[in-house]
Amino acid sequence: MDAAAPPFTPLVAGLPARVPFVGPEAQERARGAPFRARLGANESLFGPSPAAIAAMRAAAAEAWAYGDPEAHALRSAIAAHAGAPLDGVVAGEGIDGLLGVAARLFLEPGAVAVTSAGAYPTFVYHAAGCGARVATAPYRDDREDWAALAALARETDARVVYLANPDNPMGGWITGAEVAAFLDALPPRCIAFLDEAYGEFAPAEAHAAVDPDDPRAIRFRTFSKAHGLAGLRVGYALAAPEIARAFDRLRNHFGLGRVAQAGALAALADGAWLTEVVARTAAARGRIAAIGAASGLAALPSATNFVALDCGAGARARAILDGLLARGVFVRMPGVAPLDRCIRVTAGDAAALDVFAEALPEAVAAASTAG
Amino acid sequence: MDAAAPPFTPLVAGLPARVPFVGPEAQERARGAPFRARLGANESLFGPSPAAIAAMRAAAAEAWAYGDPEAHALRSAIAAHAGAPLDGVVAGEGIDGLLGVAARLFLEPGAVAVTSAGAYPTFVYHAAGCGARVATAPYRDDREDWAALAALARETDARVVYLANPDNPMGGWITGAEVAAFLDALPPRCIAFLDEAYGEFAPAEAHAAVDPDDPRAIRFRTFSKAHGLAGLRVGYALAAPEIARAFDRLRNHFGLGRVAQAGALAALADGAWLTEVVARTAAARGRIAAIGAASGLAALPSATNFVALDCGAGARARAILDGLLARGVFVRMPGVAPLDRCIRVTAGDAAALDVFAEALPEAVAAASTAG
Repeated sequence: MDAAAPPFTPLVAGLPARVPFVGPEAQERARGAPFRARLGANESLFGPSPAAIAAMRAAAAEAWAYGDPEAHALRSAIAAHAGAPLDGVVAGEGIDGLLGVAARLFLEPGAVAVTSAGAYPTFVYHAAGCGARVATAPYRDDREDWAALAALARETDARVVYLANPDNPMGGWITGAEVAAFLDALPPRCIAFLDEAYGEFAPAEAHAAVDPDDPRAIRFRTFSKAHGLAGLRVGYALAAPEIARAFDRLRNHFGLGRVAQAGALAALADGAWLTEVVARTAAARGRIAAIGAASGLAALPSATNFVALDCGAGARARAILDGLLARGVFVRMPGVAPLDRCIRVTAGDAAALDVFAEALPEAVAAASTAG
Repeated sequence: MDAAAPPFTPLVAGLPARVPFVGPEAQERARGAPFRARLGANESLFGPSPAAIAAMRAAAAEAWAYGDPEAHALRSAIAAHAGAPLDGVVAGEGIDGLLGVAARLFLEPGAVAVTSAGAYPTFVYHAAGCGARVATAPYRDDREDWAALAALARETDARVVYLANPDNPMGGWITGAEVAAFLDALPPRCIAFLDEAYGEFAPAEAHAAVDPDDPRAIRFRTFSKAHGLAGLRVGYALAAPEIARAFDRLRNHFGLGRVAQAGALAALADGAWLTEVVARTAAARGRIAAIGAASGLAALPSATNFVALDCGAGARARAILDGLLARGVFVRMPGVAPLDRCIRVTAGDAAALDVFAEALPEAVAAASTAG
């Protein structure tokens, strides 16, 4: 043994060094120029509510004081909004942060976590960080296959199964009735992590009615998408109170700052802004589909703030993506076949989509030449 | 087994429900009135730099975009400030958040973590959250006993030993030479977590010179204290690059938002404000000592932004603390004897200390009557 080696735990020593996502800023540093259009991280280019901006600005002068570690005002507003009891609401540092704590609640080394092949990498990252073994079921018709996920959970005696509805990276959705059937099909001692990050964009039929006391699921929601506050990092979880309270055993109690709580609270109160953003986002999805169609790329149905454009095959999608990046358009693509035949484009504002509309035909042409 | 019981891991099921600190907001809700003076959380009542406030306000409109997950600009500035290589700097959600990740890097169930009895509860909280066994050494003459901590680490084959310099909750410090001797006295495979949250307030002799490549220590610093940004939650760790990079295997990569990074970056650049805050804090410490002396309570020497006032015995300190709380003055006290003979008062601004000066004699008189 090297005496100078840091005394990492065996679990940590065995973890890969790769990160879930490379940020656009790192790509900008590598290419030596800023992107012209930021359409890769499913942020809301329509911005946060003006009321949220005002609340953050007012809170800035009070940033000397820690945020309430119980986030009482914010959690109370979320509880009222979601029809949940206060002690069934957990606020935290985005869904990513909440997923990290939630994974530790249920996953120990050797436990099994189930997800779809190609679904959100950060869930896999956190599960691996707990030493869990990750088992995957393939997508089916470009949607998460809830029945296959539940079957795999039963086969593997999984402790956790992850399901995003609407889905990322493909953008599709399942119905609330399917979510209910999914929960009914889970084995004992298995809990569902329902990622509803894009729920505000989804049609009514996608909304699941989960009883606030139901211990079979934790629902994860965020201010990063429709509320336009990705740069504040505020998310919340809805869970049976016994489960919600357990977050207090592991979470960073003062992790949600005063500015973040103020911004999120104001955003939640501005329902009119949310309605407008959802409408603008739907229009932007339509424009992305039209831009794609003009270059021969079909848009997949989306209940989110992004659109997956089908490029036919993984190598062609990669070539088109590279062409877009080279032209200053930040987009991403799924990492696993057959999803990786698509590129994923955020429903940006008019200026960003103008850039995309200019760059896509060039990128498609360049990819065809190269191929 | 109860089929309805959430499938927590055995580790989580065995963790206590208590939290490291109850926030002042929860106490305000319980008492039904706001505090008149917020002197219990060692926040900087002098506020953040005006430049930091301006930077946060400017960033608020850009809060729709995730912060750079590599926090490149902020980490670069910290590296230059600290004389450390960029890949030896970790930025995160306050020291609390960084301690949580760092604990997981080194502590697995059954491993031993060493700290002082009565030192920072949040370290103990995170160590317990990893399943570690916590061994404690007593303070000696109201200072952390570095030699005893190192000896205990050797006896227990500890993986981590925590030492705050300056210390919290007593406010004292050890010299940089003592820190060096402490590191030399650690056993193999043990790493020191050096909590330097209050370092900016400390005299030059307290500053430790730790080589940026030294794998025996991680230094934790924060923007929550002297920089007046507790409500943003930004801290950083300095470590040998191999150790700093390992945080990437567990941390919440997008956890540090755009507003937080902007505020911290501007705060770090405003050295004049920091100098002024440190001077005002020193004056406030002097005033707290005088207020305490007028009521017969001696101030312990402090290299921080708070003062421990010696009330003679734990029961009397508790009574005085309760009297202050009842009079609208939020203060805290250490939780372990013999430290708990003190109350801990933050070096507040003039308005807050006016309230404290009015309330303390009454609280002392009431405690004497009650005793």
